[in-house]
Amino acid sequence: MRRRWAFRGLQQPVKAEHINPFVGSTTKVFDTMLSCELQRGELSIGDGCQPVYDISGIIGLSGKAAGTVVLSLSREAAIQATATMLGETPDDLNGDVVDAVGELTNMIAGAAKAELEQLQMSVSLPNVIIGRNHCIQFPTGVKPICIPFESSIGALSVEFGLKEET
Amino acid sequence: MRRRWAFRGLQQPVKAEHINPFVGSTTKVFDTMLSCELQRGELSIGDGCQPVYDISGIIGLSGKAAGTVVLSLSREAAIQATATMLGETPDDLNGDVVDAVGELTNMIAGAAKAELEQLQMSVSLPNVIIGRNHCIQFPTGVKPICIPFESSIGALSVEFGLKEET
Repeated sequence: MRRRWAFRGLQQPVKAEHINPFVGSTTKVFDTMLSCELQRGELSIGDGCQPVYDISGIIGLSGKAAGTVVLSLSREAAIQATATMLGETPDDLNGDVVDAVGELTNMIAGAAKAELEQLQMSVSLPNVIIGRNHCIQFPTGVKPICIPFESSIGALSVEFGLKEET
Repeated sequence: MRRRWAFRGLQQPVKAEHINPFVGSTTKVFDTMLSCELQRGELSIGDGCQPVYDISGIIGLSGKAAGTVVLSLSREAAIQATATMLGETPDDLNGDVVDAVGELTNMIAGAAKAELEQLQMSVSLPNVIIGRNHCIQFPTGVKPICIPFESSIGALSVEFGLKEET
């Protein structure tokens, strides 16, 4: 007999009121940290493997809702963002770029969390994934929301999935 | 002037008493869920980009310590593990494999968290990363511990990094 696992279960769409905090936090973090204005594209509700760029920062949220936030950047956008944050341009995807992308992800998750006031949530460590054509999948029970952005440093996306405790 | 970011800071090695819970939880989960005995290899303390296999489950821990647990499996080991858990062999790296790897990661993190009794921690959603040659980097302030295992379904590794609140 086919067994179903704990975090499988009914599809639980991300609520509309969860989307605005993530749009707001991303826009605010890029404006404050990088003086970079973002144009938001059409959001999509992901079902399968979402296309991501070469570098993704990923961070877990836990507490009253469990979730993940993924910030994905092209190589060029990540290097440009690091240059602005550190004041010197990295030669390659080195530790400085990893830290800068991790820190941006951290700030986006943290700012969104603060806006999601009713959910007492905490944030895990950010990790950074590097690899062409890597793809990040969410558990079946979660429909992640992908918000694409255009900016002067290149295209980027923020993807997040939340699952409230029942 | 070069700025340093919040989660950069002093190198904080993972404590020895944190390692055993992760070794124990991985061994127990593979034994219970897959009837698969693991032989532990020599652990390494990662500094840079750790080699991982084709499929990684990643999950955040937060609370009194923030951290991440990564379970990385070869394609064959992931398919074999899914076949055992679901009772049918998946053709490819489909949603069932994603869920099975996510669930194993979830169980390893959950069992280790239970053993780390003094740390009130909660677990985020597991995500699964698919991609040849992807690599997962931890923030500079954390030295991840990588534990390789050999088993009848193939090689795998568990990597984790924890940072206690100061």
